[in-house]
Amino acid sequence: MSDPTLALQDRAAPEGTCYGCGSTHPSGLHIKSYWDDAGEQVIARMPSNPEFVGWPGLVYGGYIAMLVDCHSNWAAMAFHYRAEGREPGTLPKIDCVTGHLGVSYRKPTPMGVELTLKAWVEGEVARKSRVICEVWAGDVLTVSADSIFVRVDTAALAQQAAKA
Amino acid sequence: MSDPTLALQDRAAPEGTCYGCGSTHPSGLHIKSYWDDAGEQVIARMPSNPEFVGWPGLVYGGYIAMLVDCHSNWAAMAFHYRAEGREPGTLPKIDCVTGHLGVSYRKPTPMGVELTLKAWVEGEVARKSRVICEVWAGDVLTVSADSIFVRVDTAALAQQAAKA
Repeated sequence: MSDPTLALQDRAAPEGTCYGCGSTHPSGLHIKSYWDDAGEQVIARMPSNPEFVGWPGLVYGGYIAMLVDCHSNWAAMAFHYRAEGREPGTLPKIDCVTGHLGVSYRKPTPMGVELTLKAWVEGEVARKSRVICEVWAGDVLTVSADSIFVRVDTAALAQQAAKA
Repeated sequence: MSDPTLALQDRAAPEGTCYGCGSTHPSGLHIKSYWDDAGEQVIARMPSNPEFVGWPGLVYGGYIAMLVDCHSNWAAMAFHYRAEGREPGTLPKIDCVTGHLGVSYRKPTPMGVELTLKAWVEGEVARKSRVICEVWAGDVLTVSADSIFVRVDTAALAQQAAKA
């Protein structure tokens, strides 16, 4: 069983290549997602990153979209593992991909404040699962997202990549 | 009048700081958007960028979300300038921000193929405008987006940034 103090990414996909959340990406964002203590939400904390600026003094919305995309997907996968009564890192591996990313920008997100992402599956954990994700800048909710993540077959994905 | 052979970003916001589309960002994506010859769609072309990998061999969906976000916003602003009968780069400056970003991933986007983004305002050019954006990997439509961009007052934005 994988170490439950590690991030979901390091437990279930330590070989991950993704720019947003891959543990092995040399220059990526290395988003790390964890179950909260109550087992209700999946949480990620990210420092403000001055490179990802939009307007002066404001975080770039596209950066927030990347955080929401990867973190919401990890929430979907965490809920799938739990629905099967298994720990992340056990086999067979569970993989999801983004079907639809829906991000609503409610307020400007200020630079220089730690971002907290809170995500959970709303409704059924199924082949297509709906994930709600909130982005908090300190104690201000600046972005909310409503997205769909699709469970996929890993071998089929690898084949798609090989054909690409 | 600004040089019509330049990108919209360089005509209307040569001082732009945005990671995605700001002309002055030192390490950003420098997305460049142009009216097509028919004046119907706004087009951007981006090379494949191996840094922004998702699964091995596939483009990271969060990278595509960044491209869609900035390019769709530039389409909104281009339609606003045209609706006012003005060239981009004339004053007063027109600014929009993302209200909602909606990105549907229809097929995997292969690495190593040039991406073409095609965007246009669907319906009324208004304070809130709906922008459709397609992402083509070569001649394959891999992503479509349906988003809302909100026209804002530049001075108010600067004030928000100063307070942040």
